[in-house]
Amino acid sequence: MSTIRGCPKQGSEFVDFAISGEVANLYSMITYQLKGPTGLSALQPTVLPDPEPGPRDVLVQSMAWSLNYRDLAMPAGGYVRNDKVKQNPPLVPLSDMAGRVIAVGSDVTKFRVGDRVMANFFRDWVDGDLTSEQIGTALGGAIDGVLSEKVCLPDHGWVKTPDSLTDFEAATLPCAAVTAWHSFELGQLRMGQTVLLLGTGGVSIFALQLAKAAGAKVIITSSSDAKLTKAAEMGADETINYKEFPEWHERVLEITGGVGVDHVIEVGGAGTLERSLASTRVSGTISLIGILTGRVEKNPSMMPALFNRITVRGIYVGSRRMFEDLCRAIEINQISPVIDRTFAFEEARAAYEHLQSGKHFGKVVIRAPE
Amino acid sequence: MSTIRGCPKQGSEFVDFAISGEVANLYSMITYQLKGPTGLSALQPTVLPDPEPGPRDVLVQSMAWSLNYRDLAMPAGGYVRNDKVKQNPPLVPLSDMAGRVIAVGSDVTKFRVGDRVMANFFRDWVDGDLTSEQIGTALGGAIDGVLSEKVCLPDHGWVKTPDSLTDFEAATLPCAAVTAWHSFELGQLRMGQTVLLLGTGGVSIFALQLAKAAGAKVIITSSSDAKLTKAAEMGADETINYKEFPEWHERVLEITGGVGVDHVIEVGGAGTLERSLASTRVSGTISLIGILTGRVEKNPSMMPALFNRITVRGIYVGSRRMFEDLCRAIEINQISPVIDRTFAFEEARAAYEHLQSGKHFGKVVIRAPE
Amino acid sequence: MSTIRGCPKQGSEFVDFAISGEVANLYSMITYQLKGPTGLSALQPTVLPDPEPGPRDVLVQSMAWSLNYRDLAMPAGGYVRNDKVKQNPPLVPLSDMAGRVIAVGSDVTKFRVGDRVMANFFRDWVDGDLTSEQIGTALGGAIDGVLSEKVCLPDHGWVKTPDSLTDFEAATLPCAAVTAWHSFELGQLRMGQTVLLLGTGGVSIFALQLAKAAGAKVIITSSSDAKLTKAAEMGADETINYKEFPEWHERVLEITGGVGVDHVIEVGGAGTLERSLASTRVSGTISLIGILTGRVEKNPSMMPALFNRITVRGIYVGSRRMFEDLCRAIEINQISPVIDRTFAFEEARAAYEHLQSGKHFGKVVIRAPE
Amino acid sequence: MSTIRGCPKQGSEFVDFAISGEVANLYSMITYQLKGPTGLSALQPTVLPDPEPGPRDVLVQSMAWSLNYRDLAMPAGGYVRNDKVKQNPPLVPLSDMAGRVIAVGSDVTKFRVGDRVMANFFRDWVDGDLTSEQIGTALGGAIDGVLSEKVCLPDHGWVKTPDSLTDFEAATLPCAAVTAWHSFELGQLRMGQTVLLLGTGGVSIFALQLAKAAGAKVIITSSSDAKLTKAAEMGADETINYKEFPEWHERVLEITGGVGVDHVIEVGGAGTLERSLASTRVSGTISLIGILTGRVEKNPSMMPALFNRITVRGIYVGSRRMFEDLCRAIEINQISPVIDRTFAFEEARAAYEHLQSGKHFGKVVIRAPE
Repeated sequence: MSTIRGCPKQGSEFVDFAISGEVANLYSMITYQLKGPTGLSALQPTVLPDPEPGPRDVLVQSMAWSLNYRDLAMPAGGYVRNDKVKQNPPLVPLSDMAGRVIAVGSDVTKFRVGDRVMANFFRDWVDGDLTSEQIGTALGGAIDGVLSEKVCLPDHGWVKTPDSLTDFEAATLPCAAVTAWHSFELGQLRMGQTVLLLGTGGVSIFALQLAKAAGAKVIITSSSDAKLTKAAEMGADETINYKEFPEWHERVLEITGGVGVDHVIEVGGAGTLERSLASTRVSGTISLIGILTGRVEKNPSMMPALFNRITVRGIYVGSRRMFEDLCRAIEINQISPVIDRTFAFEEARAAYEHLQSGKHFGKVVIRAPE
Repeated sequence: MSTIRGCPKQGSEFVDFAISGEVANLYSMITYQLKGPTGLSALQPTVLPDPEPGPRDVLVQSMAWSLNYRDLAMPAGGYVRNDKVKQNPPLVPLSDMAGRVIAVGSDVTKFRVGDRVMANFFRDWVDGDLTSEQIGTALGGAIDGVLSEKVCLPDHGWVKTPDSLTDFEAATLPCAAVTAWHSFELGQLRMGQTVLLLGTGGVSIFALQLAKAAGAKVIITSSSDAKLTKAAEMGADETINYKEFPEWHERVLEITGGVGVDHVIEVGGAGTLERSLASTRVSGTISLIGILTGRVEKNPSMMPALFNRITVRGIYVGSRRMFEDLCRAIEINQISPVIDRTFAFEEARAAYEHLQSGKHFGKVVIRAPE
Repeated sequence: MSTIRGCPKQGSEFVDFAISGEVANLYSMITYQLKGPTGLSALQPTVLPDPEPGPRDVLVQSMAWSLNYRDLAMPAGGYVRNDKVKQNPPLVPLSDMAGRVIAVGSDVTKFRVGDRVMANFFRDWVDGDLTSEQIGTALGGAIDGVLSEKVCLPDHGWVKTPDSLTDFEAATLPCAAVTAWHSFELGQLRMGQTVLLLGTGGVSIFALQLAKAAGAKVIITSSSDAKLTKAAEMGADETINYKEFPEWHERVLEITGGVGVDHVIEVGGAGTLERSLASTRVSGTISLIGILTGRVEKNPSMMPALFNRITVRGIYVGSRRMFEDLCRAIEINQISPVIDRTFAFEEARAAYEHLQSGKHFGKVVIRAPE
Repeated sequence: MSTIRGCPKQGSEFVDFAISGEVANLYSMITYQLKGPTGLSALQPTVLPDPEPGPRDVLVQSMAWSLNYRDLAMPAGGYVRNDKVKQNPPLVPLSDMAGRVIAVGSDVTKFRVGDRVMANFFRDWVDGDLTSEQIGTALGGAIDGVLSEKVCLPDHGWVKTPDSLTDFEAATLPCAAVTAWHSFELGQLRMGQTVLLLGTGGVSIFALQLAKAAGAKVIITSSSDAKLTKAAEMGADETINYKEFPEWHERVLEITGGVGVDHVIEVGGAGTLERSLASTRVSGTISLIGILTGRVEKNPSMMPALFNRITVRGIYVGSRRMFEDLCRAIEINQISPVIDRTFAFEEARAAYEHLQSGKHFGKVVIRAPE
């Protein structure tokens, strides 16, 4: 275990400490940073002074974090520019975090010390349509993220944690669950419609839970019968093993009586967009989400979109208002996020590696030092 | 039992028959007509020749009908003009019917003999926004309705019955369930939102079932604890006895943490609209449906609508496309319409009287002669 | 001319000055306050120290203000509670102001010193649906307004002034023009539709200009032929003198071939809502705006809303995003706000009285001390 | 001039006639048919008996037709399958026609003999979202079109011609103008927004006229300065010669201050979709219309759609309701369709060749025999 530097009391000299929970009590905090686009080895802990909240800021003690495919792209160096702002290393990674308020600025009325909260993916996207300026506030991409023992953001960047969730569960929501919510909100998913989900990654599993809570029918694909069985247990109405049915769009059409589905949550991968277009009904909607996977098909034919009046809509996480609406839906429908496995704060790199392996079903979570 | 006239084979003379199932096999049919605005005594059976379908028409053997409050207004004489077309007596009453196709015109491709179908409330409202012309095709109001052994309508006026429903259940949908659907579709109900339902009439009970299927939270009012208990058993999250809480809007605000509900299904009655406005959150929606009850508050203050940016939207049943979408939702979510009681065809007047008594919970159904 | 107190340099003692432009150069500023609900005599100038902007605030030197009917309600004492927050006297009045940035906080990136800006009516309504919290930030109602030589608000409360407008013109936009915009945005006004405007107040005149720019047809009412002539010169397609046609809804139906209009901008007044409902087509929209006039009909029958599927939507000014969109529309379409008359800062009370007289056509503006 | 066969009075023998106006008076009519996918030589006149309208049909004497790029694809053999129904030759071509009602069925109430009307592109798409069944009723593709002296369609397939248009002008609307309308309606174009138009084909020119009528700003591209000059005279705010600026998306960004446009009307062509995506603002909309040009880019990268939350929406002409709304907009805003050149009925093939040359600016029209 490497050592890091901190100060035992406010204003004292920094000295060396082992990475452990006790450091959290110092007037300093441990933060992970990506030191450059050099792979996971670039992920290194460092010690920084505590952030000082301004009059409209809220300071939060982190309790848990979760990972998304997007987070694998950062150390690989291929993603950052897409968040509109050139983020030179070092970059504090991750967008997904849940914690407890430990200090509020003088003008803050919405939160109090002790409140359980989650960070919103885009610090400044509160409501309405996403703007260029707001894209420039994506946590862990355009600006520093949250893999830090303490996180300070403006009050408009925080969402109250639903009472029905633990902090571990809450930490899984900001990116994947809000993305699924945004897709259904913009696509105006209604009960009785049919949704096609590709694979069993984080967005797809949340989309499964939300679509079932909303009274929709769900078709889901995977290359693993074991994962399909789990999806069916969670309520998926139809499952398709795409290794068994490489032309899986034909199976989708068969299931839907030749009509096609109302919505596709298109999370990317080679050759999927064309098949998704072929799986969609006339006047249907495809939510394009590859951003989370870092994989997007390069040469789809868009002709079926034309001839079938299909809407293909880029979905990029969501606003704080969407996140708050999601939380109400989670509470009322008693939705429990699926956690695959948790890792200790000092094992953050191992959490990344586990996500990279693709063996998970559900979210990979990092827990705060106790 | 009175006798009516029919012909034992096509083209033969009409002779007298008792009203019974055997008449249905003649080349003639029994139809109820309202002979004038003189109360329920105006409801009388008569015999007419079978309708002859034109090239785009579908002829259907009725299996069941259901009643709505609206149908009580017709014999009372106060309603017809509201359907935009002066309907001189006699008027064939009722809008709600389910049956089986017995003949199709030469150009009809969507239906085949034997298909189970339901009539759409507005014969000509297929999709899009309601128009003035379409209002003039309200069954059992602007034009003759369906309380007839056989009903002939253009192919665009029919909807396929969900496999999961009996004909009795299907007969309950066209007016009340489509009205509830329309309210939620236009109001863009989303999972996690809160819906306020007033009373336990047909629209409210369907709205309860649909709102729960859609992942919403439901608050429902009634003056009867027994009915509230039934509503809670069907999933209502909160119940309010408005005799116990005459200022029930205050109870609604209490339940919603002072915020108010997202949607109200406002089915009318003295003094309700002002309380509904007071129960609704800023930027919320009220679906105004009194049309089905024939009762509408005469002097609401609309000030809260202004100051709280509330939308009050007149809802008048719905289009065929909405009805078809409703059917998908019913099938996928295994929703079973609640039938209070069924009456024989020859007891139609007793069915009206039962509805008028207000003792029912669920729909009042008339069954076809066997 | 009364005298007020200010300090000739920062930190110096306060001394007496006449109300005039020279005071603006002091390290203090003149602010009007409503001292209580005692009529226009309650409107009195006072001197306050300059506001100090926090890290996300913008301080603006006022150049011009404009009045709305709403502002007459404040001194009359009947309005304040509707803004959700009890505003005890003294209250700085007015919501409409244009000026120039004189200082920005350290975190502000969107504005620079010298930028021409206008205040947004709701300080905190940036985008999306209005919330209860945001209602509590209505300038000159729930919180102090802008009739002050200098105004300090968070950066999200300001909108850049279109290059095509003078500061006087810009000062007319925040309440009335944004209200008209909001009505058309929510009602999804499309070119070719017909809009009914009631009277020639501030909202109606902006609605006329916007509706014509958007390719719609406009019918407008007034009791003054002179005002109708002016409206026609500004592009109104049809005018109705409601003294000549007390049953003006019949004239509207005649003009629209019996169909009714697509939208009504309903600004209130005795008996208008029922006639507006009668003037609206099936599935049409009424934007309810009486909030600006302080007059709202107490006992409309809402039956036509039901039977004709009409949407009645409370409109309450609008968000900053709407305001910004409005500005683009004003620039591209070269729309010039109509100013009836301007008053000097020290004649503010006379401006109120002029508005109260109802003789104006266009906005009443107060100009800053030079 | 070739001769064709007709009958001088109803029921008489068919005899040979020259193709000319006199034939129109016979109890028969000349119809063009595409005899197979063999190029323009496949377009041949033939004589058919007059259609007989059923009870809900309307029979129309054609006065004028217009051509679209789509119509060039039919004789080339590459298009028909896209209309969902295999149309074996012979196929009556064209979707765009205006004429006068000469007979109505017994149940038709909406039209009378003498009414001026236009055919709707999709015979059965009346309102709401396009369905698979309705795609199968595209005139001149899925089913026989309108290049016939007389055309018989159900009453729901006709739209009344605006009084302000000649029959020649009216004949230009059904495909191109309705497509432009549909794009703006679904994309919710609002005054003040900026629209990017690619090229000066039929859809783009209508989009220019509609966007300006709606108060939007227009940027238009072409390879011809002469055409750009014409577009500017019609109101285009900014023009880009894409030969001069092959990286024209950079010029679009420059014009829009780096933000990008709100809408693109994307009519296809090599390499345009990627540039259109790069030209669109965050949360903006691209209407994908290549269907009319038969040219669609095969390998666009959709990544910018993801990262900028762009909606790409397939647009396929439109519903009858949209067409009717368009007509109102045309009348109120005095929009005159641009006709490049007219051809006589017997020169139909020359009209196709003129369209194919690409030299036109505005619509190519065929006039009926006088």
